[in-house]
Amino acid sequence: MDNKAMDLDILLEESLEKILGLLEEKKYFQARDELLKYNAVDIAELLEEITEETEIEMTIILFRLLPKDVSVEVFSELPSDDQVEIVNGITDKEIDFIVKEMDFDDKIDILEELPANIVDKILEKTPKNERKLINTFLNYPDTCAGSLMTPDYISLQKDWTVGEALEYIKKVGMDAETIYTCYVKDSGRKLIGIVSLSTLVISDDEVRIKNIMRTDYVYENVYDDQEDVSEDFKKYGFLAIPVVDKEHRLVGIITVDDILDVMEEEATEDIERMNGVIDWENSDKGYLDISVWQHVLNRLPWLIILMIAYIFTGMIITRFEGKLSEIICLVAYMPMLMGTGGNTGSQAATLIIRGLATDEVDTSDVWKILWKELRVGFLIGAILSVLNFARVCWLDGNGAMVALTVCSAMLFIVVFAKVLGSMVPLLVKKIKLDPALIANPAISSVSDMVALSIYFAMALLFLGL
Amino acid sequence: MDNKAMDLDILLEESLEKILGLLEEKKYFQARDELLKYNAVDIAELLEEITEETEIEMTIILFRLLPKDVSVEVFSELPSDDQVEIVNGITDKEIDFIVKEMDFDDKIDILEELPANIVDKILEKTPKNERKLINTFLNYPDTCAGSLMTPDYISLQKDWTVGEALEYIKKVGMDAETIYTCYVKDSGRKLIGIVSLSTLVISDDEVRIKNIMRTDYVYENVYDDQEDVSEDFKKYGFLAIPVVDKEHRLVGIITVDDILDVMEEEATEDIERMNGVIDWENSDKGYLDISVWQHVLNRLPWLIILMIAYIFTGMIITRFEGKLSEIICLVAYMPMLMGTGGNTGSQAATLIIRGLATDEVDTSDVWKILWKELRVGFLIGAILSVLNFARVCWLDGNGAMVALTVCSAMLFIVVFAKVLGSMVPLLVKKIKLDPALIANPAISSVSDMVALSIYFAMALLFLGL
Repeated sequence: MDNKAMDLDILLEESLEKILGLLEEKKYFQARDELLKYNAVDIAELLEEITEETEIEMTIILFRLLPKDVSVEVFSELPSDDQVEIVNGITDKEIDFIVKEMDFDDKIDILEELPANIVDKILEKTPKNERKLINTFLNYPDTCAGSLMTPDYISLQKDWTVGEALEYIKKVGMDAETIYTCYVKDSGRKLIGIVSLSTLVISDDEVRIKNIMRTDYVYENVYDDQEDVSEDFKKYGFLAIPVVDKEHRLVGIITVDDILDVMEEEATEDIERMNGVIDWENSDKGYLDISVWQHVLNRLPWLIILMIAYIFTGMIITRFEGKLSEIICLVAYMPMLMGTGGNTGSQAATLIIRGLATDEVDTSDVWKILWKELRVGFLIGAILSVLNFARVCWLDGNGAMVALTVCSAMLFIVVFAKVLGSMVPLLVKKIKLDPALIANPAISSVSDMVALSIYFAMALLFLGL
Repeated sequence: MDNKAMDLDILLEESLEKILGLLEEKKYFQARDELLKYNAVDIAELLEEITEETEIEMTIILFRLLPKDVSVEVFSELPSDDQVEIVNGITDKEIDFIVKEMDFDDKIDILEELPANIVDKILEKTPKNERKLINTFLNYPDTCAGSLMTPDYISLQKDWTVGEALEYIKKVGMDAETIYTCYVKDSGRKLIGIVSLSTLVISDDEVRIKNIMRTDYVYENVYDDQEDVSEDFKKYGFLAIPVVDKEHRLVGIITVDDILDVMEEEATEDIERMNGVIDWENSDKGYLDISVWQHVLNRLPWLIILMIAYIFTGMIITRFEGKLSEIICLVAYMPMLMGTGGNTGSQAATLIIRGLATDEVDTSDVWKILWKELRVGFLIGAILSVLNFARVCWLDGNGAMVALTVCSAMLFIVVFAKVLGSMVPLLVKKIKLDPALIANPAISSVSDMVALSIYFAMALLFLGL
């Protein structure tokens, strides 16, 4: 942790102690003033801590003492269970205010998390036209552009002058999610151009919007996947991207701060999938908030698939059993050969899956990748074989033919695993599935079976079993 | 891929064909006009394709025909080898212009990538004061806040009025990386406050900056790690964060678009480390750009560590060899027990490592995590044991005592692997190392050894070997 963050944490810690002390003495206003030294994100963090240390009533009292504009911001930063407690604890009039002042997309996020009875309570307070909008948003699938967007954007008329536009922004800008990009629609609500606030500010007041707006803007469709949306943000470096429906009507915008969360979610999903954990609920719940049963359900499928795969591995061994018991020392090298095959295959798969996710490689690179992995596999296999030859002969004191069996198997297994690990993700991508779904467990279990077969084949060859 | 992106790609593809045709007929200006239908990012993509399809000279000619302001933007989007070719192909006067117009932080990025002779050529053209600055930036370690920042920010005086500030921004805003957040410094260059463009635009012209600037801003120190910086962007949702030196003097700002790249890099690093690939060069090179030897060096260390670990696994088997040859059918279940242990351990490790990276869990949650993993492990172990009992008895036709050996071993192995996989990352974090460094290969090799020991212990117990 860096120095500054540590300083800040110590500061927060000290304030927390102070506030808890003040609350004990019932000096609520002084406690509130201590809170108000911080910004909304940190206040929310302090309130969370206070909830843990004392009764929820203290948090509610403190929350009610916050200036209204602060409390709205703080509310949207609180974890959802604290939000429920607070909503239960405060008056309808206060809810009313929070609902009215909260940003549209924060409201959506909050409603998605809250239990149904609270949602009803909040929707009741929401103006009818906005309620309709909220319901539209809540119905978009969780991972599409529609669920990320906000309708709080600024739209300008193409015939306005820059001066008129700035005047208008001054009037309505307070309520918009961003005023840094403004949108120009035609009479049919179709998006015809965008203009950034920086362009407005550095342009002369008399210039007309239509002469400075950009028409080569990038946009998303409501049902585009959030992963594609975040790709566009990364590619173009925009602060906001407009979202249109299939008639090219502007329905909302997505801002870059929401994309940071999407990127983190997508990376988490990929990492979990690659290691055989399937998030069935597609939730953004943390590890600790997921129930034991849900954890079991998320992890069991791959383990059961593996178990079935190992039935075949077992069959290969059983067929070889008689010969194996003659040269029992071969058993001692089985775990190493299978383990190395599995791990080296995962390495290749990881690099290709990640490369596909970040657009560094593409299915059309298949031959380049194959040629590279063949060389990498051969070199690694050769190095590991030489090391193993030394081990089998000198350390374990086995004969040269046993060593030859183990080492030639090692070479073939590594080359095979590298090719398998690199080619399978490309194949999965080619048939338009998520390459991360072919998890490392799958690659290592296939390479296990092949590793055993190669090993036994080498034994037949060199030891004449 | 979504519809819109597909539409766009098809469009690009069509334009590419058209341009290549025009180039063949030597209609350079028409080819340029076709290019100019797109934004800088897409033009760069097209030029890349053109380089692949024809000679580099074509790209250079086209590039030289672009309007100067476009060519600057396009240049910074090109891959570094194309940049080198172009720099080699164009005149000093043109380099001069590019160097002068390029954003400061783009220039840094480009200089970090280019070969030394080209860097000299560019630095030669750079004004002396900026050259000094560039050298300062280039000397910051690659992964700290200093290497991400740009000095192209707008600074305001605290006694200015909003009107004066907007007038100033109109004059100098063109050259700044962002005008959306402006910075207020005292006479000693110390940062005393920030004010957003949106605050300026919606405030009255007569208000003084000092009355609307925020003093509870978040900042970074130059040597803060980029991972902490991206944490702050995620936490607070800012568009830019100021960077100060140890005297709290403002030295630059970091903008959110650069953080998207950092987040992707950090996720890639974690994913690779977790799967036993170490990126020694700490490079942002893609898979295809890394040489075969570097690939070997990145992957070999963990494989060699594993090989050493497997010497111990082999020793465990060798000690048991005599008894194993008596009941050779036990060998057939070894891969399954070791494989399941390894994979179930990786699942737990993955969830905890990712939870630590995204701040969802913390080392202080150790008891909660242990209790959760014990229950998850017990449930998964029990389910897999029951399924295995059926397999061993009915499918394989082995006796009940063999089945009991396999199933009780399975239960213990799964519980042990879950505990190992979840506790080791917490321990590594506690001693302040990156938990991703204790890769899945390490966890599966330790769990392999323990799995074998448990299996043989159960065999002694139930089969009286």
